[in-house]
Amino acid sequence: MDRDTTRGDQTHLTEFGENRMVSRFRQLANAATPPGVLLGPGDDTAILRVPADRVALLTCDMMAEGVHFRLDWATPWQIGWKAMAQNVSDIAAMGGEPGYAVASVSLPGSAPKQMAEEIAQGLIAAASEYGAALVGGDLVGSTGPVTIDVSLLGWVEEARALRRSGARPGDQILVTGALGASGAGLSLLLLGLTTARDADETAALAAHFTPRARVKEGRTLAATGCVTAMMDLSDGLAADLPRLCTESGVGARLYAAQIPIAPACAAVAPRVGAEALTLALTGGEDYELLFTCPASAAPYLAAEVGAATGTRVTAIGEVVPGDGIIMVDTAGNERPLGQGFDHFRVGA
Amino acid sequence: MDRDTTRGDQTHLTEFGENRMVSRFRQLANAATPPGVLLGPGDDTAILRVPADRVALLTCDMMAEGVHFRLDWATPWQIGWKAMAQNVSDIAAMGGEPGYAVASVSLPGSAPKQMAEEIAQGLIAAASEYGAALVGGDLVGSTGPVTIDVSLLGWVEEARALRRSGARPGDQILVTGALGASGAGLSLLLLGLTTARDADETAALAAHFTPRARVKEGRTLAATGCVTAMMDLSDGLAADLPRLCTESGVGARLYAAQIPIAPACAAVAPRVGAEALTLALTGGEDYELLFTCPASAAPYLAAEVGAATGTRVTAIGEVVPGDGIIMVDTAGNERPLGQGFDHFRVGA
Repeated sequence: MDRDTTRGDQTHLTEFGENRMVSRFRQLANAATPPGVLLGPGDDTAILRVPADRVALLTCDMMAEGVHFRLDWATPWQIGWKAMAQNVSDIAAMGGEPGYAVASVSLPGSAPKQMAEEIAQGLIAAASEYGAALVGGDLVGSTGPVTIDVSLLGWVEEARALRRSGARPGDQILVTGALGASGAGLSLLLLGLTTARDADETAALAAHFTPRARVKEGRTLAATGCVTAMMDLSDGLAADLPRLCTESGVGARLYAAQIPIAPACAAVAPRVGAEALTLALTGGEDYELLFTCPASAAPYLAAEVGAATGTRVTAIGEVVPGDGIIMVDTAGNERPLGQGFDHFRVGA
Repeated sequence: MDRDTTRGDQTHLTEFGENRMVSRFRQLANAATPPGVLLGPGDDTAILRVPADRVALLTCDMMAEGVHFRLDWATPWQIGWKAMAQNVSDIAAMGGEPGYAVASVSLPGSAPKQMAEEIAQGLIAAASEYGAALVGGDLVGSTGPVTIDVSLLGWVEEARALRRSGARPGDQILVTGALGASGAGLSLLLLGLTTARDADETAALAAHFTPRARVKEGRTLAATGCVTAMMDLSDGLAADLPRLCTESGVGARLYAAQIPIAPACAAVAPRVGAEALTLALTGGEDYELLFTCPASAAPYLAAEVGAATGTRVTAIGEVVPGDGIIMVDTAGNERPLGQGFDHFRVGA
């Protein structure tokens, strides 16, 4: 075996060189290439077959060290996985299927080449998990923090594409799965607890480091024809629902008692001095789907998603005229909902 | 007019906030949207119509402050332009047409919001120049250098896609346009000359800051059916030609006397203490097309490109069996060609 591909190799990128790193990256990506890839990494662009009867979906998400991840918390593989998974989640949120990704990574030249390779492996693993392929990339030796930007091309039947803008007063508001596990995981990390002590902490950290995207759920919902608006929960319900409402020109009422709290969140919250509901609303990075539909269709949608995927769907509120989000607490008191995470306005 | 859109506004991103920055970005992008964009920035993904009779081309390129640009040299608009143009050039190098781009930008929270806006305007201007559209993006508040990653989706008739791998011994090697102007511009900057003193310096700096992509030339070449391999010159002939040769499993002989030197390069080179030929070979960022074809077809290709675009095409060498690149100097002496720019091996 070539010395450069040996696991645990401490060769630095500077020493290894761009051409050889790109060759290695290519070797990794080409090992997991579906048939639609006519040409993978290594040329000026990839050449790709896209379904003729679909419209294309295109999205990108950037993750930066110190903002979205810390190298003393997450492994390079996990960072790669998450960078890909969050893009897959955006495609899922349109009711689409992910197809082809490209990824740009900037690393200090002093970084071990093993780091670049593990990031690539995480990217490829997450793409493969959802039937997508990494087909190209760029590698930059920078002076700054590790930065990963993934762009993902997917597709959907034109009539099934689910925008954020179709919610109407009277619609129910629903979410897939349960919320707060990723936020609970982050809270553990912020307290210095990087090693799980039980199954709940394991689940919370896994939710934070290796989130799943709800592709099958999104496809099932899109196929029903009943969903009026959909998005994924990346910044937390408290930040994301206002975006959906703004796009739709509506307001919302949420019922605290109905918000599905992930068991890991419920278990971990008291240990990190947080309310489980707060983590579920503001923790972010749950990558569940948030969607609306006519109230009469909600049971049907929940049954369809449950039958197709086993994932629970929960009604958490209703769309109302006007703007703003009202939270109804367990005692029946109403208050305006606060905001979630803003990359430039932390704590706002 | 909203105060936040006033030119010269010194509001910082931290104060302005992500949601409002994204709204502003969206407003800019939607003002320049072609009809194939069914949904532009602002949702989980863009929704795009792609031609049913084409294969897709997907590429990305990342630029980082301190590696690819300096904020005391280039304006944010120029940085945005270049980030887009280099991706357009990759599509051109496949013989394709650019369609839709997404861009991720990381900036310090202390950066003026005007900077983000000007970067976006440069991105959009370069996309529009080539009939493409910016359809989405991500904005990250980071602690590190300004980093811009653009991904571009384009398309080409499947049979016309031009890979790097088809060069055969006996083929001629050709380039569009002339080389070295961008390298000459960079050399001026490295000597502290940021203001042009004459038309040559103006041309050299323009080549460096606002490069053009050879889309029409690439389309014309692809339509001839005679090109055996093609790529764009981003890192310089000395670095890029070996890549084409490696992909094709061939070697090459280059004739120094035939390499077209840009007039701005020829004029500026002595002022910066460099040989014009060296700048043309190793300066990089010329974004001209490098391609090969059977020798008998070369005059036809040159005539076709000249007629369609006015751009000169020059034969600079020939493909030979084996590997390695031999440079034949003006005295007829042969020597192996050195390497160009490697992001992780500067000076290698």
